[in-house]
Amino acid sequence: MKEIKAIEFKDNILYLIDQRKLPTIYEIFQCKDYKEVDFAIKDMVVRGAPAIGATAAYGVVLAAKEFLNQDKKDFLGNLDKALEVLNNSRPTAVNLMWAIKKMRLLIEENRSLSNEEIYVKIKKEADKIFEEDIATNKAMAKYGNEIIKQGATILTHCNTGALATVGYGTALGVVREAHYTGKNIFVYADETRPRLQGGRLTAWELVQEGIPSKLIADNVAATLIRDGKIDVILVGADRIALNGDTANKIGTFMLSVVAKAYNVPFYIVAPTTTIDFDIETGKEIEIEERDSIEVTHIDGVRTAPEGIEVYNPAFDVTPWENISGIITEKGIIRSPYKENIMKLR
Amino acid sequence: MKEIKAIEFKDNILYLIDQRKLPTIYEIFQCKDYKEVDFAIKDMVVRGAPAIGATAAYGVVLAAKEFLNQDKKDFLGNLDKALEVLNNSRPTAVNLMWAIKKMRLLIEENRSLSNEEIYVKIKKEADKIFEEDIATNKAMAKYGNEIIKQGATILTHCNTGALATVGYGTALGVVREAHYTGKNIFVYADETRPRLQGGRLTAWELVQEGIPSKLIADNVAATLIRDGKIDVILVGADRIALNGDTANKIGTFMLSVVAKAYNVPFYIVAPTTTIDFDIETGKEIEIEERDSIEVTHIDGVRTAPEGIEVYNPAFDVTPWENISGIITEKGIIRSPYKENIMKLR
Repeated sequence: MKEIKAIEFKDNILYLIDQRKLPTIYEIFQCKDYKEVDFAIKDMVVRGAPAIGATAAYGVVLAAKEFLNQDKKDFLGNLDKALEVLNNSRPTAVNLMWAIKKMRLLIEENRSLSNEEIYVKIKKEADKIFEEDIATNKAMAKYGNEIIKQGATILTHCNTGALATVGYGTALGVVREAHYTGKNIFVYADETRPRLQGGRLTAWELVQEGIPSKLIADNVAATLIRDGKIDVILVGADRIALNGDTANKIGTFMLSVVAKAYNVPFYIVAPTTTIDFDIETGKEIEIEERDSIEVTHIDGVRTAPEGIEVYNPAFDVTPWENISGIITEKGIIRSPYKENIMKLR
Repeated sequence: MKEIKAIEFKDNILYLIDQRKLPTIYEIFQCKDYKEVDFAIKDMVVRGAPAIGATAAYGVVLAAKEFLNQDKKDFLGNLDKALEVLNNSRPTAVNLMWAIKKMRLLIEENRSLSNEEIYVKIKKEADKIFEEDIATNKAMAKYGNEIIKQGATILTHCNTGALATVGYGTALGVVREAHYTGKNIFVYADETRPRLQGGRLTAWELVQEGIPSKLIADNVAATLIRDGKIDVILVGADRIALNGDTANKIGTFMLSVVAKAYNVPFYIVAPTTTIDFDIETGKEIEIEERDSIEVTHIDGVRTAPEGIEVYNPAFDVTPWENISGIITEKGIIRSPYKENIMKLR
């Protein structure tokens, strides 16, 4: 077993697993200043909302280091520019904006301190973001592991592992915990078209960890579920409405329908930060439609004819009725979701 | 509109659309002797059971032409060798064996005739196989079109079109008929992982014919069905049991489960030759497992990590309860399937 460290900060260098090159090449991408961090986020060296948030936080640390010896006014002015650059590195990443906002407030509150003192505070905050994400994932994994039986076969979708988070993962974090606690699990991983995050990243993590598993085309899952080959389905979430409706990678909803038809437990694994208290139901979630090239081309090679139109939604919404429970770092939330979500708050 | 002729025989040359090169390159592959026909079948220039059957039949015509001026004994001996070669060009193609067997019997019955007379009979038989397949498809298409409403949106899976048959197609033949009869249909085509026959071939046929349509990842279908965007689902079949259970391309069963959950009609379109009178239920159908490279690589490019295991079944079985009807060249068969199949016989 090899621990997967998607993000590591040591002696003012940020080390990232270069996810553009997986699964065929394992390479570490080094960022020595905040512009390299900006590039790494933009070019998807790093991906997954929590991972991007922590990466951006360390980008701010590197900026503070770079401007440390400037006079106070320049230090704060340049730091502000760096915050702006990092904030715009990916347009829709919630955790990115959240991390930058946290850093901005911290700097604002401490602007009377020395540059060195501000640097130390920034570094401490970045480490906190980093460590809290791992702690959250490990807490989720512990709660999740309670529902995993000895010898269970688990089906999962997309990548929700160490590569999508700062470490350990959400749904794949539960898989890790079950594996490490000797439950002799077996995993089926959906390849997850169109972007193949299951085939490229989850499969890579499973191989790295030596977790017994098989990769399948998304079309195969239904037969496995029907034939009693799957004990539980674990998936992540992008956004959860108050009633429990959950937006996640396209294909999640399909799994939930088949799971319900054949009485297989279907769990969401996500931190409570994924719950959007501003929306009542999944109907309010707008589904992002992505570029058709994700469907017509694979690794730059055209597989569909010129002239064909494409419908390529990135997510779908699974209704709360199809969800057995939502595994969070504070415990497992079950129906009635709204009532139980409010209790957690 | 451009009529798609996957197979055409003219002046002792067999013209095939080279399906190895679609959808990016449209090229005609010419066979001037039976060895070229053997190669075309082996190398998948041509694919789809009915298409392979007709192609092999014209291979026998080309062999008879080649040996025409030999003495009778050599003519028959060499023809027999050619039959053997063609028969082995693809190991599991039912229509191939069927066509070769037909030709073998025909030659046996007419061995007292002159070479020229035998050639004429072989040519006539090949034309009959060719024309009967198109006639069957057109009859299916007419029956199928009866259930297609004006303005309907149709979802289909895999390739069941002119490229898989001698012409017109089965499920896609119904789509053609509805389009030609002015029903203003719209088609969603599943790309159909792992081999992408929907993305490569169905999409190409839809573009050629100018049928309004969109290509989708297989993961998208469930959301479209739930949201009322699909009026009817049409798929082909590889084998149908007496009770109506149907083996078809992997992913078909998943569609049927979602269709049932949301009350969307789900039809199989297949000639009666697809019904296997020797098996009572789908439980008796063995599912072929194919090479893992279909999932780990796309067009020779590795997309999944080394060391990952794969489960890659080619087909799945949809239970009769999920099927609204089986559209054949003799009419639409509905439940109770066994009773109604027996009536047709």
